[in-house]
Amino acid sequence: MTHPQASHNGNDNNLRYERGLAKLQEIDGEGGVKVVESLAGIAPDFARLLIEFPFGDIYSRPGLDLRSREIAVVAALTAMGNAAPQLKVHIQGALNVGATRTEVVETIMQMAVYAGFPAALNGLAAAREVFAADDEKSARPLAEPRALVETP
Amino acid sequence: MTHPQASHNGNDNNLRYERGLAKLQEIDGEGGVKVVESLAGIAPDFARLLIEFPFGDIYSRPGLDLRSREIAVVAALTAMGNAAPQLKVHIQGALNVGATRTEVVETIMQMAVYAGFPAALNGLAAAREVFAADDEKSARPLAEPRALVETP
Amino acid sequence: MTHPQASHNGNDNNLRYERGLAKLQEIDGEGGVKVVESLAGIAPDFARLLIEFPFGDIYSRPGLDLRSREIAVVAALTAMGNAAPQLKVHIQGALNVGATRTEVVETIMQMAVYAGFPAALNGLAAAREVFAADDEKSARPLAEPRALVETP
Amino acid sequence: MTHPQASHNGNDNNLRYERGLAKLQEIDGEGGVKVVESLAGIAPDFARLLIEFPFGDIYSRPGLDLRSREIAVVAALTAMGNAAPQLKVHIQGALNVGATRTEVVETIMQMAVYAGFPAALNGLAAAREVFAADDEKSARPLAEPRALVETP
Amino acid sequence: MTHPQASHNGNDNNLRYERGLAKLQEIDGEGGVKVVESLAGIAPDFARLLIEFPFGDIYSRPGLDLRSREIAVVAALTAMGNAAPQLKVHIQGALNVGATRTEVVETIMQMAVYAGFPAALNGLAAAREVFAADDEKSARPLAEPRALVETP
Amino acid sequence: MTHPQASHNGNDNNLRYERGLAKLQEIDGEGGVKVVESLAGIAPDFARLLIEFPFGDIYSRPGLDLRSREIAVVAALTAMGNAAPQLKVHIQGALNVGATRTEVVETIMQMAVYAGFPAALNGLAAAREVFAADDEKSARPLAEPRALVETP
Repeated sequence: MTHPQASHNGNDNNLRYERGLAKLQEIDGEGGVKVVESLAGIAPDFARLLIEFPFGDIYSRPGLDLRSREIAVVAALTAMGNAAPQLKVHIQGALNVGATRTEVVETIMQMAVYAGFPAALNGLAAAREVFAADDEKSARPLAEPRALVETP
Repeated sequence: MTHPQASHNGNDNNLRYERGLAKLQEIDGEGGVKVVESLAGIAPDFARLLIEFPFGDIYSRPGLDLRSREIAVVAALTAMGNAAPQLKVHIQGALNVGATRTEVVETIMQMAVYAGFPAALNGLAAAREVFAADDEKSARPLAEPRALVETP
Repeated sequence: MTHPQASHNGNDNNLRYERGLAKLQEIDGEGGVKVVESLAGIAPDFARLLIEFPFGDIYSRPGLDLRSREIAVVAALTAMGNAAPQLKVHIQGALNVGATRTEVVETIMQMAVYAGFPAALNGLAAAREVFAADDEKSARPLAEPRALVETP
Repeated sequence: MTHPQASHNGNDNNLRYERGLAKLQEIDGEGGVKVVESLAGIAPDFARLLIEFPFGDIYSRPGLDLRSREIAVVAALTAMGNAAPQLKVHIQGALNVGATRTEVVETIMQMAVYAGFPAALNGLAAAREVFAADDEKSARPLAEPRALVETP
Repeated sequence: MTHPQASHNGNDNNLRYERGLAKLQEIDGEGGVKVVESLAGIAPDFARLLIEFPFGDIYSRPGLDLRSREIAVVAALTAMGNAAPQLKVHIQGALNVGATRTEVVETIMQMAVYAGFPAALNGLAAAREVFAADDEKSARPLAEPRALVETP
Repeated sequence: MTHPQASHNGNDNNLRYERGLAKLQEIDGEGGVKVVESLAGIAPDFARLLIEFPFGDIYSRPGLDLRSREIAVVAALTAMGNAAPQLKVHIQGALNVGATRTEVVETIMQMAVYAGFPAALNGLAAAREVFAADDEKSARPLAEPRALVETP
């Protein structure tokens, strides 16, 4: 991963940048890195700001655990319904920081009440894609045979 | 509280209705009851459906704890920004099921990243109103003098 | 009602303007006139455009009856949830062109499925206000005692 | 079509489920069935809830005819603009319950006034796809040669 | 480009139509023409209305320069996030009427503050596509080697 | 104005904070200060972040003049339609950095095309309030007698 250029604030924001980069990798893993890299050609400064503010400033705050933060983000992006790529990154992010697939699915289903069934259906379609890619990557089709969702 | 008329499905949905009503009272307390009562004159059937589906069907599901469900709802309503009365009910609801004020505030601040600063600012204004009403009601101004938010 | 200034297109749009003004009065009645008047001090040209395009061009088209057009508008404004004043004008508009109160309420309830319960609840609150104002105006509290909605 | 598992409410909701399933097939036909089937692997309970609440509870209500309900849904989904797959299902649904192509097109055009031209343009693109698929399926290219829309 | 049929207002709107068509071509160029052509089979009247109202009435007004109008549109479509095809047309449109690539990118980045980072990221992805297509078309890869954005 | 507490990053962000505060005062004046002050009791850290990121990082960037940035923000907030208080602050902000009343009104009218007439009408109502408050404050009712908008 190429690192966005140093901030035009001189060294002042190095701490935020380093903290944000670590947090981005902890939460979004590969997906987050790809988002940052995709900005290199068009708006490299925005890559830096994305690391510094959301990850260096917000996700790094105490007061709310990362799993709850990611559940909040999955809920919001499902409800807004206009940011499918980011929703997928954060469904994976929720799993990365300790949410179960069931918890992700329940969060999305809950949105049927607050943003309507189409929003929830499109959220579930995103989850299905993420779970399938995750299964393929980890080559553990036997470990979780088909109980993708432990419905009651 | 006047109870909405029995379902036109006969007795079939009594179980869902009773379960939903209990869940509504557990989560939203007085605020939820007021919402239901406000529907009496205009759409009493909708009051019944509101109890049966969101509360009897969705909130009653296992797989995601109530505190996480309410954090998801506070996040989504803050992000959508077009349902201020319901956001207030659910900020109180989040507190009712075990979220702290700090967790509610952090959830709303997180939305600055995903839905913009105006959405977060309006969510914080709603939280301020709910916290103030809650303080007044419980007459415990000394217990939490002014550390509404335990910022780091 | 003061008429917005003549179009800067000379007389060319008089036909659309006259047709639109008649349509506005047929559909939205007093509420529509108030909207136009409110624009006099800030954007009088916009009042003219509002009459010409939505009412002169769109509502005047054959191919869909006015009652269906107003049901579509009530549905959309309820679902979007960010235009309460216009929603109220069009709830009255739907009644003006032949929809019943029950049809308006059912249209709004239907939005719970597509845009979530908060959107529907706020739509019903708008309908309650419009129906109450309408009752007061027509002084017919006895004619429809309290069966505002003929629920099954 | 595989049927989602019986409700965890025991037999209580069988009536709603059966009524909803019949209504889903009446309105959305094949498109609705596909939506339900797509949920099998990720959230089978949501398939059941989708049949029970929107179709068993809402669409089955008296007070508003199905054609008007579908016009309301086409309007709302066009205006919201973030649920293209569901918009297509309901454009077909509107046709299935008696709306004409012209009525669907006029409903979408009306949204230019309330949600902007981009929303209407994207709605018309969805309608073009649905009409084309419908033409292909029914192999009746001669019956309606090209007067897709009977413009004045 | 096939011209939509004459208005059903007789000749009255010819002036608006001609003025709008010229403005559409000035601003959106090829992209605008394609939008109009795409309507031929589904809603030819809407093509006419699209030329007359947005371009003949609004864009033709004095009081705000075209470059500012296009910056406003790029901002709004980025923020709404549900009209990707139109956003691309207007990113090109902004360039056509004198905005620089840097100005377009800055406008989109500004939306991170008001509509969230996902909206801005998707806007930047749209800009990257438009700039790449524009580079290919003009075969001027040397003129602007890679300083797509003159970051500080 | 009470200053939010020093950043938990130690002195590192002082530069961004000072630069942001100056920019906030330049653009939003009194309205911006009030927003920051309103956060003191509920989320003082958010006041700091609001100054650092939007104003210290984004508004301070070269590449797009402040007047264009504010036109972009007025357009976006009008189009989104769910942040009336912030829209008013930025209508005043646009005037503060050199946009004319006519330019603000034209920007809002332009949104009728992209987000619908209700969004534009509510934006114009916000502008009317801001212009009236501005007139009162400057006690210059004679200077601009009633040509609030220099319509053609």
